[in-house]
Formats: sequence, structure tokens, C-alpha cells
Amino acid sequence: MERLIPYEQLLNFTREIFQKIGCSPQDALTASTALLSADLRGIDSHGVARLIGYVRLQEAGRANPRPVIRIIHETPSTAVVDGDGGLGLVVAPFAMQVAIEKARQVGTGWVSVQHSNHFGIAGYHALKAVENDMIGIAMTNASALVAPTFSAERLLGTNPICVAVPAGTEPPFVADLATTTAANGKLEILQRKGQQAPEGWIQDKKGNSTTDPHALKTGGALLPLGGDREHGSHKGYALGAIVDIFSAVLSGANYGPWVPPFPAYVPMPTGMPGKGIGHFFGAMRLDAFRPADEFKQDMDKWIGRFRSATPVAGHEKVLIPGDPEREMEFIRRQSGIPLFGVVLEELKGLAEKFGVEFP
Amino acid sequence: MERLIPYEQLLNFTREIFQKIGCSPQDALTASTALLSADLRGIDSHGVARLIGYVRLQEAGRANPRPVIRIIHETPSTAVVDGDGGLGLVVAPFAMQVAIEKARQVGTGWVSVQHSNHFGIAGYHALKAVENDMIGIAMTNASALVAPTFSAERLLGTNPICVAVPAGTEPPFVADLATTTAANGKLEILQRKGQQAPEGWIQDKKGNSTTDPHALKTGGALLPLGGDREHGSHKGYALGAIVDIFSAVLSGANYGPWVPPFPAYVPMPTGMPGKGIGHFFGAMRLDAFRPADEFKQDMDKWIGRFRSATPVAGHEKVLIPGDPEREMEFIRRQSGIPLFGVVLEELKGLAEKFGVEFP
Repeated sequence: MERLIPYEQLLNFTREIFQKIGCSPQDALTASTALLSADLRGIDSHGVARLIGYVRLQEAGRANPRPVIRIIHETPSTAVVDGDGGLGLVVAPFAMQVAIEKARQVGTGWVSVQHSNHFGIAGYHALKAVENDMIGIAMTNASALVAPTFSAERLLGTNPICVAVPAGTEPPFVADLATTTAANGKLEILQRKGQQAPEGWIQDKKGNSTTDPHALKTGGALLPLGGDREHGSHKGYALGAIVDIFSAVLSGANYGPWVPPFPAYVPMPTGMPGKGIGHFFGAMRLDAFRPADEFKQDMDKWIGRFRSATPVAGHEKVLIPGDPEREMEFIRRQSGIPLFGVVLEELKGLAEKFGVEFP
Repeated sequence: MERLIPYEQLLNFTREIFQKIGCSPQDALTASTALLSADLRGIDSHGVARLIGYVRLQEAGRANPRPVIRIIHETPSTAVVDGDGGLGLVVAPFAMQVAIEKARQVGTGWVSVQHSNHFGIAGYHALKAVENDMIGIAMTNASALVAPTFSAERLLGTNPICVAVPAGTEPPFVADLATTTAANGKLEILQRKGQQAPEGWIQDKKGNSTTDPHALKTGGALLPLGGDREHGSHKGYALGAIVDIFSAVLSGANYGPWVPPFPAYVPMPTGMPGKGIGHFFGAMRLDAFRPADEFKQDMDKWIGRFRSATPVAGHEKVLIPGDPEREMEFIRRQSGIPLFGVVLEELKGLAEKFGVEFP
């Protein structure tokens, strides 16, 4: 059974749940807005489907519902933020705001974050800069599911990068990408459907290529963007590594195989070198480089040229990064967020458990 | 016939050629050092093999041997540099130095460059920041050889990104990657050997997958990192687009299909929206985030953990980005730069033409 729930109602429900687990009203709204931006943009794996995961993190004492988030080091263009173990959904908006304020002062702002937790989708945070006529950058590390090239071990998370760029009459350019061939959410879909994965997405525990979408449960790993060495997996590995270093080595968070897992039932890594999960944010004022309107005119021309490229037969058009998500948001703001199956049952369970009405 | 030429002798020769085409002694040394860093690091396609290409650019009036390179806009953390049509090999070191100085002042420095030309390998420029206890970032756009996902047209260059990160007792982490499955230089090797390319590297002029390494000469294109949509080519396309936007839309250089070609015999694009080729550089002071020694300790631990990962059977070890190039540089600084075939003949031809002794 599928249900379409109006965005505002789902936001209200999510906000109430976050309050029930101890968040302040303001933080509950911040977290809900960030979380549900994933559902609006069609990235269902990272949205309200994870609400129960965040609840379990707080119940397991792995997330602090009342964090005192603060800057622990700064220069005119940089800061390190200590998230105090709070939800990344709350810590990340704080840190992005610091980056934006610094950009306002000196042209750009760069913030690395320690002691945080999962922050939802990178795109939500990067787009905050776009609202301020800035280029926005957001990235985060995550628990290890990805094997570097030639490694039989998982040492990196899916470590996404988002870069969001304002345009003029065109909508913004929003590239939001995991540094793997395929996101974990796509594997979950194949698992549910009982289908095989394409070659180049995963390896088994020995490092052999496999099409078994369940291989991650038996010690296998996702593969870096590129898939194998011949197709450039060392580049995807390097990109995931850069995200890890910027997010965690710069801030003093955990990195590599020591990043805390999202599922509260998975044991914490031993010998952790840092604090929590790490993120990295950047904001660059357009007019720190050129008059903003000149930049936007060229950006419109850039987008127009790419969008009008001759497509390969069988494909309607060349897409601009961010197109599919923006179109999805337009639809879902009008018709609602589709929920079904396990997710719907889990949310109803949360409603019952906390005595909150489910829409 | 192959010859091994000592680095210092080849540097001296290259320096003399650059002077012969009009560069100042200082610029000739700067350009030669940047150019030959590619040969030292084993990226033979981008080193002295291209010297004749740079000569032809100047002869065709497409490169200015006596540029007045200057900052045309700046904030405390940013600048736009006008390269005045000079060799990228000279413009890029100027711009990277600006980024480093700004980082010294306010924590980070970010410089977008217009009206430049090809700058050699990105790694050389990014490593300048590492010498100053900073993370270095370098990228450049280039003439269109790459088709975005679903496009039958070439709209992006191979648009490389380099991120170089200092460590403590370990050597630096240096990720230097074209945002394509395979670099154009690898295709040239296959062409010479008469071999086919792997699937996922190139498409023909209609956008069909092909293994013909000559397909670029008949309207084909290199493919973005990922290869096809199922393996994430939309991510490689987005990364190449980000490089294009940061390098050229931020600076006022040419972008997309309007980037000037490297071979002087290829006609210039019509309707160019900007000036020359664009680059983008960044420098981030380590101690703008954490005490530099703490950062380096964690970076050593990061590198040590990845290097000691259990390798897949058949592979000796997991590499750290920059390992192969550093090992090659160690060898070539001792034993010399290997030159053969067409490259050797072309260099001898330049020596004769300009009355310079070839080593």
C-alpha cells in the first residue's frame, strides 16, 4: 500500500518525533527540514525513511539531542566546528551558516566539522549558499562500505560531494554525488526486487567482482566511482579519500575505517582516533571573483549550451546536474511524498510509540 | 632508439627553447620547471613531448611570450588573475603564489584565472602549497574532447583536478586526476600500438560505445569518469563541469565547447564568450584548522592504515594517491628522462631550428 502524504504534514510529524526524543523545538524544525529535503528531491533512501535510524541513534546514546555546537578554532576564512555529538541534521546547518558569514566578510568561508553525525543529503546544505549568491560546497564522510582500488577491505564511506552554483534565469547547477559507482540505496532496491547488480558496482569479501546485491552483508564492498582500475576506480578512490581528509583529518573527527556506523545496532569501531563523523563546507561569494550578474549570464549560457547539446539516439536530452531532483521537488511539493512498505509501517510505529498522530 | 637524458640537461635545453621563442630568462626557467615536472613524475604525455606544441602556439600568435600577468579583482581570500595570453606554465605559478599568499593572510586563498593557456600537470602547481604547509588544489579546463552523459557532442575537456595534502613522516597525498575514464595520452599509446581500447573509454560520433582508439578523429569523444550512466558517468560529467565552471565561468575565460585547442593547427572556436583557457587554484593553511603537527600525525595514521590494507589477490598492495608518481620521480632524477621515437626527433628538430645544442 502506498500513501501520498502532503509535505507540510510529514514535516510536522517529523518535527514532533524529533522533539519527543529531546530536541529543542528550533532544532527539531531544522533537522526535519534538512531530512525531508531528501524526500522532496527524490533521494528517498536519505529522507524520512531514516527517521527511525536517527531515533535509534539517540536511544543508543550515540547522538546528543541537546548539543552545544561551537567554533573551536578559526581564521578570517576558516573554522572548525565541534558538533558536540549532535545530529548532523542540526550541526551541518550551523556550520554552513558559519561558512556563509565568513564568505560575506572575506570572500570565501571553509568549515570542517568534528563530532557530528549523519547530515542527510549534501545538496540541502550546499544550496544554502546559493540562496546567498554564493557557490556552495558540502561533503561528509561516513562509515566504511567502500574498498579502495586493490583493497579487499572496506576503508571509505560513500563520501558524497555536492557543489551548487547559482545561475541567472536558469535554475542552479547542483551536482550531488556519492564517490562510488552506485549509492547503497540502489543496492537496497535491487535486494528488495531480488535482482542482480551490474558488474562494477560491488566486490565480494575477497575482492572479486560480483553481481550479488547482498555481498555487503558477507564482507563485500561497494566500489569507487570508475569500478575497476582499467576504468579509473583509483580516481573514485582518490575522490572519496579527499572527502575523508577534508571532513575528518582537518577537523579531528574519525576517518577511514573508524567512522561510526549509522545503524545503532552495529558496534562502534575500536581505537577511534577522533570524535564522531566529519563534514566539510565551503561558500564562495560570486562577487569575490566577478560581478554576480556577469557570472550568472555566463552560467546561463553554459547551462543553455549543455542542455541543447545533440543527444545520443534513444535519449531525449542532455541533463544539467540537479535537473531531475528539481523536477521531482516541483512534483512532490504539489502531490505529496510517497511512502509505502516497511517505511510506512516504521513511521506508524514511531507515531504509536511516542503518542504522535500520523498524518 | 631510446635515450636517457639527465634531468638538468633536459631542463637547460627546454629553458633555452623557451627563451628562443621570446620568453624572459626567468619565465623560461619557470615554464621549463613546470613542464618537466610531468616527465619526472612519469606523465610523459604532458611533459617535454609537448614542447613543440607550445612553440607552435607562440608561432601561431596564440600564446604571448611576454605577458603582463596581473590581478584584476580580489578580496582578502580570492583573486581573479588575467594571464594576458601567456603560457599557462608561467601564468599558473603566478596564480598559485597569489593563493598561497592569501592563505598566509586569512587562512585560505582561491584564485580563478582567465586568458591563460595549458599549464602542464595540475600536480606541480598543487604541490607548491604543500611546500608551505598548506593543502593545494589545482584544476584547469581544456578544449572539448569529452561528451557529457547522453550527449553525442563533445562539450568538456579532460578537466583535471589535483588535491595535494601534506603529511608528517609519510610523503604527501597527491591525487591528480582527469575527470574522464582514461586520459587522452592512454589512447595515443593504444593508437601507436594498434590496439583496441577497453569498453567504457570512448564513444563514436553518434554516441555509440566503441573500442576504436581513433574514434576521436572522426567525431567521437572520451567518456566521463564512470563510462556510462549505469556506472556513474553522470558523476564524472558533473565533476568535469565543476572544473569548467570554477576555472572559466568564475574568471571570465572560455568554457564548454569554446575552450581554445592546444594544437595550433586546429581552428579556434567561433563565438568565444571569454578569454583564453581558465584555471582554478586553492591553498588552505593546515593551521587554519588544527595545529599543523596534529593534522600531520593523523594524516600519517590515515596513510599508514590505507597502505597496510589487505590487498586483493594478485595485487601487491593498496596504493596511496601520488605513490607511483613519487617513485617514478625518484628513479628519473637519478637515471634521467627516457625519450624516444617521434618525441626525440621533434626535440632534435627544435634544437636545429633554433641553433641550440641538444643534450
